[in-house]
Parts: sequence; structure tokens; C-alpha cells
Amino acid sequence: MPFDRFAIIESTLREGEQFSTATFTTAQKIEVAAMLDAFGVEMIEMTSPVASPQSAADVRAVVDLGLNARILTHIRCKREDALQALETGVHGIDIVIGTSPQLMQHSHGKSVREIIDAALDVLSFVREQQPGVILRFSTEDSFRSKESDLLRVYLAVADSGLVDRLGVADTVGIATPSRTFELVHQLVRLTGLDIEFHGHNDSCCAVANATAALEAGATHIDTTILGIGERNGITPLGGLIARLYTLNRDYVAKYDLPLLPQLDALISRLCDLPIPFNNTITGSSAFIHKAGIHAKAVLADPSTYEAINPDDFGLMREIAIGHRLTGWNAVRDRAAALGLSIDDATIQDVTRVIKSRADERPLTGVEIDALLRETAGITPPHLPTPFPSRGEGENTLSEVRA
Amino acid sequence: MPFDRFAIIESTLREGEQFSTATFTTAQKIEVAAMLDAFGVEMIEMTSPVASPQSAADVRAVVDLGLNARILTHIRCKREDALQALETGVHGIDIVIGTSPQLMQHSHGKSVREIIDAALDVLSFVREQQPGVILRFSTEDSFRSKESDLLRVYLAVADSGLVDRLGVADTVGIATPSRTFELVHQLVRLTGLDIEFHGHNDSCCAVANATAALEAGATHIDTTILGIGERNGITPLGGLIARLYTLNRDYVAKYDLPLLPQLDALISRLCDLPIPFNNTITGSSAFIHKAGIHAKAVLADPSTYEAINPDDFGLMREIAIGHRLTGWNAVRDRAAALGLSIDDATIQDVTRVIKSRADERPLTGVEIDALLRETAGITPPHLPTPFPSRGEGENTLSEVRA
Repeated sequence: MPFDRFAIIESTLREGEQFSTATFTTAQKIEVAAMLDAFGVEMIEMTSPVASPQSAADVRAVVDLGLNARILTHIRCKREDALQALETGVHGIDIVIGTSPQLMQHSHGKSVREIIDAALDVLSFVREQQPGVILRFSTEDSFRSKESDLLRVYLAVADSGLVDRLGVADTVGIATPSRTFELVHQLVRLTGLDIEFHGHNDSCCAVANATAALEAGATHIDTTILGIGERNGITPLGGLIARLYTLNRDYVAKYDLPLLPQLDALISRLCDLPIPFNNTITGSSAFIHKAGIHAKAVLADPSTYEAINPDDFGLMREIAIGHRLTGWNAVRDRAAALGLSIDDATIQDVTRVIKSRADERPLTGVEIDALLRETAGITPPHLPTPFPSRGEGENTLSEVRA
Repeated sequence: MPFDRFAIIESTLREGEQFSTATFTTAQKIEVAAMLDAFGVEMIEMTSPVASPQSAADVRAVVDLGLNARILTHIRCKREDALQALETGVHGIDIVIGTSPQLMQHSHGKSVREIIDAALDVLSFVREQQPGVILRFSTEDSFRSKESDLLRVYLAVADSGLVDRLGVADTVGIATPSRTFELVHQLVRLTGLDIEFHGHNDSCCAVANATAALEAGATHIDTTILGIGERNGITPLGGLIARLYTLNRDYVAKYDLPLLPQLDALISRLCDLPIPFNNTITGSSAFIHKAGIHAKAVLADPSTYEAINPDDFGLMREIAIGHRLTGWNAVRDRAAALGLSIDDATIQDVTRVIKSRADERPLTGVEIDALLRETAGITPPHLPTPFPSRGEGENTLSEVRA
């Protein structure tokens, strides 16, 4: 089963740093790495030490933590980058070079032959210096590269016996699940090596593409917390977890799932980014049920409208009641929760009042509760009147109760 | 080509109203519908008139606008719902009933035979009352339904000759692209009818699944602006547009693309929801290029790292310079934009200073410009000194220029 042996390469501290508002201090990098390690990601990728003096020092600082996760850094296909990477004591080096016509022309200017030569030169150099280092070679912009160029490069690198893993990168976010499956499956068949997938989200398919890669036999998926990265980012950690969970909860049982909301909250705080309202699992309403027919069924059995159990992530579901789409089952459930005994016909009348009032503005929980208590003949004297008269007889409570 | 004849059923005013913070006034619904119509969506789906008195009035109000888009409403499989829908003068009625074991037990309690009977009863009733109305029948929770149940229901409805369109719904967000393709393709082959796909985003695959549905021959895709809907929502309009654009820009040429950012901004305002930082196309950094190697290539040719041209949506790209991942090509480009003549070696020195300073905190554009002007020997007397001495010789400008 392809999903049984995958590993996450968590790149918040590399790809994530390429998000516009991300600049992590050393202390912040240590906090992120430690929490990712506690969550259980297998590898943590960090910004190249070549980027800046602090970047180099930070790789050393995270390596020195002695985490379970292997610490990787991501470098250009250059000896000087490799040397600086090795000097940090990092466990693994991820080498990348562009192979699309666009990047061959405007990024490095090398031909396919020169790319292969550079790759073999740098890979040999790293292996000589540090035989035990985990070594990955990836093309960049793989999905806009000519298939013949890609295969020449991958086969030359695979034949060299120098690498542990090949990487495939959807650098501009154009890959489709079927094309991802094809390319990864081809590399699995042709090389037998571990395959890593890195996918950007420009066309909203980074999670679907990562999943297709796993189905095709990929062993490693790049993620970042909240999906932060260049432009609008890559496969979000939480999105990948949600996707695999819905396929089979066992696929993600190896991770400490209740830490996921804390990871999302941490990056939200460090990068001053509100968690997107529609974020998988940790979005503000990921487990809010609103429409009456949804609420009715969820009250009977949450799995009716929930593919993911919020309990597994230390989260709670919520039934929204005070809106125009509400249903009487949700109102009855709230009355019961308050210990109130109200017959179904009256509950249905109260529901009509709620809908009609909510056409003007949604009702708060306090207002709903007061309405239910009043209906049951209980009006605590210390509560202010929650509903001032609207001057319209048809929607007043007295009529409902008449 | 499957992508040449698809239509968008824009459900912000139905599914979207099921998002926790969405409650649209009549005026707001009119504003949303009019802008969607200007954008070019083919159909606009609205909340059932059964939901509340205002909901019924709002359908009438939007129908009365006389838009190009056809106005639909979405109802339970009940005669009373259908009657109220017809009374609004709506152009189309979307009927839905659950077919998964979960919903058959907890939503309506009907058997497959009873579902078919109810469907044929309500569909016949609508056709008698209003022969010209656009009529859709959809199962709910299609992807957790037994295949045999699904086919019995769909074939009975298709054989009746009463409907214009069949709907497939991934109600809890568990579908995969390959399973979506299979089911839609099966229905296309077996019925020859138009097929609509409605997909929730709980496992982050709503856009990929909608695209797979189109590949399989689906004719209609449900979207909402920003993807708002129950829980964390459905296929976002902008996500679908981005996906189809990256496959072939011509697929979405029929829409007024520069209106997309205005649609996203409108729903952001009406529902008090910040546009997610990672939103496709309209996220805050969807077109910001940060890492040095990205910036270098984008300055030569934006398509190197852009699958989507921001110009097509009335948006602009940005090169971020004042951070530790910056590169000297971006700095040189900024100097040139300022009309400054600085040789490459000096630009590279300045870049090192920027990286080192940005290790402490990112530099603003004003600070970068001042640094470049100072390097070129131009220090406008009216500007405050942008960089107070840090007390460290290695990073001061004088050393760079030395």
C-alpha cells in the first residue's frame, strides 16, 4: 500500500520562509522545529546557509537540538552551496536545478548536458565529503520540462548511485493529479528510488497532486504549515493530513494530530497571518453545521455531515441555531440541553419566530436561550429583555405561545 | 473537448449562505447577483424560499432583475417546497435528496424505492405546473452512497424524461479526483444527460474534483465566491477559474476576469471574512516573488515563475527585495528603476548588506531605496538617515563602498 510508508518533509523553515511575511528568528525556528518534531514529521527542511549569515547559524542551531526528525537544507546545484551546507552538520541535502526551457534560459543558462555534469559533480563532491549524508536530487519546474530532458537528467543521476531520493517539483502550480501520477509512476518504475513531490498551489490542486503522487508510489511529500511559501504557497500540512485521514484514518495515526491546531496557530502568530476561514480542520467554521437539515442529521449522528471527527484533533463541533436556515430539530436539541420541556409543536413555532427574526439579523446564543426559557415559562428576573418589541404582532412570542 | 461547454452554477446565495457568518440582506443579494451576472456566470442558485419569509422574497427580487444568468433555487424533494419555489417565478429548480446510508437513516428515513417514488412525484408535479422550468435532480452524499442505490435512482429519474440535468454531490468532502471522474463518466455514458458536480472542500480537493468532473464530461460546476459554504465550504469560484486558466486560458475567456478580485472583495466585506492569505489569484501574495532565484528569473520573464498572468485579472506582480532571501538581480533592477548607475560588484556588496540587516528585521522599500541612493552617492538632504549605526563595522555601508 503506497500510503503506508510515506514521510513528510516539512518545509515551513525553507519554502515557508519564502512567503512574503515570513522571517523567522532563531528562537522561532527552534520553536517551529520542536513542535513539528513533536507532531511527528520525519524530516524538516531549512533555508540554505548560503542565503544569509543567520540562515547558516540557524541550521546549526536546529541540528544541535537533536530532534528525531532529520534536518535537511535545500541548495542550488553548486559546490560552494554544498560545502556551506555540509559545514552546518545537517543530516540531509536537497539539491535542485531547473530543467524547464523557461528556467534553463533565465535561471542558470545551462544545457541538459551541462545540468547532468553539474549534478554529478556536486553529488560526487557531497558523497566524498560526507558519505552518510541523505542526498536528494530534484529538478525544478518538472511539469513544464520536456519529458526527454527530464528522463535524461533523472536516469543519469539515478545511474550514478549517488542519491537516496529523486524530487519532482510543480514549481508554478500547474500540475494535475493525473499528470502527477504519470510522472511519479514513471520514475518509480524506471529508477526504483524514493520519490519526493513538491507542489505549489496556484491552481488550488497542491493537496490533490500530493495525494496522486503517493498513489503513484512517491515516498516523500513536501508540506508547510498553513501552506505558506512563494506566492500562495504549497501543499499545506493540515490539508494533506485531512486528505489522507478521509482516505483512511490509519494513514495519519503516526502523527500527534491534536498538535495540528497548535502548529497552525503558531505560524499564524509568527507570520501575522489570520488562519484562513476555509482552512481544512482549523478554519473557524470547519466543524460548524448551519442548515437545518444538516443540523438535524448531525445531532443524530455526526458522521452524517462530517468526514473528519473534530475530537481527533482536540477540536469541537458546533451547531449554529440563530439564523434563517435553522431547523426545529436543532432548536429542540438546544431546549433539551437547557433542561426545558417544550412540546414539538411549540418548538416548531419558536423556530418560525427565530427564522423570521434572523431575516433581520442573526440571533446570538444568549438570545436563543432566553427565547426558549421564556417559551417554557422561565424568565430569570436578572436577565435583560433580550428582544425589544418590534412592533409587528406576527412575530412576537405571545403569538407563538397562543 | 469537455472544457468547451461547461457552465458555472454560482451558489454563493445558497450554499454560501450556509457559511457560518453569511446572512445576506436583499440589497446584498442583488449586489452579489448583479456582479456575478456581469462576471458572466451562467446560473445563480439561491436559498430555498421555504427557509424563511425573506428568502422567498429575495428569490423574487433577484428574478425581477432580469439578469442574463438563469436564477435557480435549491429545494428538498417535497411538493410543498416545489410549490413555493414555483411561486417565486424562478427559472430553474434544483431538487436534492440524500442517498447514502447515513442520510437515508438520519435525514429523511426513506428507502431507495421511496426515494424514487418521491423524486418522480415531485418532478412530475413541477413539470405539470411549469413545463418550461429548468429541472435538476441530485442525490446528496453521492460518494458515500451504494453504487447500486445511486444507479437505481439516477436511471429511474433519467428514464422518466422529466429532468434537464442530474447532480452529483460530494457532500462531506471525501471524493477523490479519480472517483469523481469514474462516477461522472458513468452517468454521462448511461444517461446522456447534463451532469452537475457539487463538491465540498473538507479534504482540500474541491477544485481538483470539479476539474476531474469536467474531464469526465460534466457540464455544470457549482461554485461559491471564496468557496464559502457549510463547514469550510465548496469549490471556490476563483480556484476553479485559476485551475481552468492554467489548463488553457481560452477555457475561461468567456468570463470578465478582472471582476474576480471585486467579487472576492465583496464577499469578504459582506461576510466580514479576510480574504485568505493563500487564496488563488486574490490572496495577498499570490503574485509576490521573494527568493532571489525566483526574482532574478521573473525579472527576465515573468512566466518563469507565474502560471497565471496577474494582468489578466487587473492585478500586479511584486518583487520583494528587503529580506534575507533576496538576490542581487532584484537589487540591481530596483537601482535601475531609480535611475541609479551602480556597477554589479557594488550591487552584490549592497545585497550582502541587505541580507545581513534583514537577518534582524526585513527592510522596507523606503530603506532599500535610501541605501541604493546613498551607495550611488545621492543622499537627499531632506530625508532622515534611514539606517542608524548598528555599531557593527562589517555591515555598514562605508565598508561596502570601500
